[in-house]
Amino acid sequence: MTVPILVYQPRAAQRYCTYLRDQGCDTVYPATTREEAEAILQQHPIEVVFGIGFPLDLLERYSSIRWLQLMSAGVDHVLHQGRVPARVTLTRMVGVFSRQMAEYVFAYLLHIEKGIERLCAQQREQRWKPFRAGVLTGKVIGVAGLGSIGQEVVRKARAFDMKVHGLSRTGEHADTVDRHFSDREWVDFVRELDYLVLTLPLTDQTRHVVNESVLWAMKPEAVIVNVGRGALMDESALIAALQQARLGGAVLDVFEQEPLPAESPLWRLPNVYVTPHMSGPTTVENGSTYFLENLARYQAGQALLGVVEPGAAY
Amino acid sequence: MTVPILVYQPRAAQRYCTYLRDQGCDTVYPATTREEAEAILQQHPIEVVFGIGFPLDLLERYSSIRWLQLMSAGVDHVLHQGRVPARVTLTRMVGVFSRQMAEYVFAYLLHIEKGIERLCAQQREQRWKPFRAGVLTGKVIGVAGLGSIGQEVVRKARAFDMKVHGLSRTGEHADTVDRHFSDREWVDFVRELDYLVLTLPLTDQTRHVVNESVLWAMKPEAVIVNVGRGALMDESALIAALQQARLGGAVLDVFEQEPLPAESPLWRLPNVYVTPHMSGPTTVENGSTYFLENLARYQAGQALLGVVEPGAAY
Repeated sequence: MTVPILVYQPRAAQRYCTYLRDQGCDTVYPATTREEAEAILQQHPIEVVFGIGFPLDLLERYSSIRWLQLMSAGVDHVLHQGRVPARVTLTRMVGVFSRQMAEYVFAYLLHIEKGIERLCAQQREQRWKPFRAGVLTGKVIGVAGLGSIGQEVVRKARAFDMKVHGLSRTGEHADTVDRHFSDREWVDFVRELDYLVLTLPLTDQTRHVVNESVLWAMKPEAVIVNVGRGALMDESALIAALQQARLGGAVLDVFEQEPLPAESPLWRLPNVYVTPHMSGPTTVENGSTYFLENLARYQAGQALLGVVEPGAAY
Repeated sequence: MTVPILVYQPRAAQRYCTYLRDQGCDTVYPATTREEAEAILQQHPIEVVFGIGFPLDLLERYSSIRWLQLMSAGVDHVLHQGRVPARVTLTRMVGVFSRQMAEYVFAYLLHIEKGIERLCAQQREQRWKPFRAGVLTGKVIGVAGLGSIGQEVVRKARAFDMKVHGLSRTGEHADTVDRHFSDREWVDFVRELDYLVLTLPLTDQTRHVVNESVLWAMKPEAVIVNVGRGALMDESALIAALQQARLGGAVLDVFEQEPLPAESPLWRLPNVYVTPHMSGPTTVENGSTYFLENLARYQAGQALLGVVEPGAAY
């Protein structure tokens, strides 16, 4: 017998519930809208909410709720809404997306180095024309954010014999990189990089942290990969840098506004790859697996995974 | 003072010689044709030949030659011509191409999993349409050939948390893979694979080793990556398997005939990537660096790297 759980997800709440019931979790109630959520909260003493985009004011109003498990790694969209009541533990997903996101990063790094677009174009024309492709070996990658996602990027970069620089606020995991920089050293950090990968959380401190002066400090052939949040970068400054060829390229999975508006020049700039926020997808399977692990801990009175400390921004 | 060296390369002999002279190797003579080579051999007591495609009969005729350093990892194109005289040590390049070739392999594996072609097409249409991309994590890769190139593929596959199977004749490095198969177990080897990577040398034993029965044993969604030699596969059987969708795709850097003839269906088959034998390029720099290391050993009377034992096929 599990505690009463509300699953809040605009599209897939029902599929999450089916999956969870199949795993023996029988007290789950799906809601795809605020209205459905309220109806359930009025009927059942919901103790746990598992979801994305759950209206924070409902946490205030329904005092049975003790724990909110997010379906994401980032918490900026939640804390943006307001405060989580002290009685509610907030948890995010940690480690669920790391491997997929690091695969995404290396897919594009290798795509660029090996000239796959050029090779595909030659194939369409049936042209046999060898050229000298690039190599990742020996290149310098800078990883901004050394949490679980950043750590996985570091690990794969090692397998490609890259030089690995890292930047983080806390200095945690500084020993895993060849050179470590603090968040007061952005300009120094980016200067030598061939690739800059952003895996930071979005907070008041990291908003627009990649600004004009950081972009201008980069090598003109360097490429930025953003799998964190769009607002980590000043998108206008990025567009200007790309238009002026002060930057080699950008691989962007996240944007200041999503979906990326049709009028954004990013869609059409050369050497820019736009992908629709899918490098680290939450799926019914990986989301539920993480939740069930945490639920077992919750019911056993153990410490939860991914707790966002009260007052913390990530 | 170095021994007299003939550099034989149809296009870049002069550039190799310039590079070698810059490194203090002053007794080098470039030849781009058989005629040029003979003229040099008649004038100078050449002891060392560093090259690609050097006519073997000249080794017989000019008895001053003691060592032939190839500019390639494969030796099939040399041994195909005939026998190397007993007085001449034959060496190939070992370890020079491994990292680049393994980068090529993972560039395409990730390209396929992440759906980069689909993402690029969506970008051209300015369509924001997330989909569920594939993952390498957990997939099964089979590496046929566990020499220096195969070992590097194994190493990178570990960083992607793949299951790694291996096949080799000698059983050497069998301990680096999760399951090892001998060269009498091809059909069992390929049965469970999501990806089959060929890094084998071409010998009488390996010619057409990937034949119809091997191809038919593979999962219909499996993808073959060939960076070894074209003739490792029965190309007609491969084409038939792809046309009948009995195979998920192929990434081919090498072919039975190169350049790949315009009439080959491989150019146009869906899910086939044709690249012009460039996954592991010999460059003036990496080729010369390897040669200079071996030359130092030669002059010091030490064992050479990459010796092809008399009678061996690779």
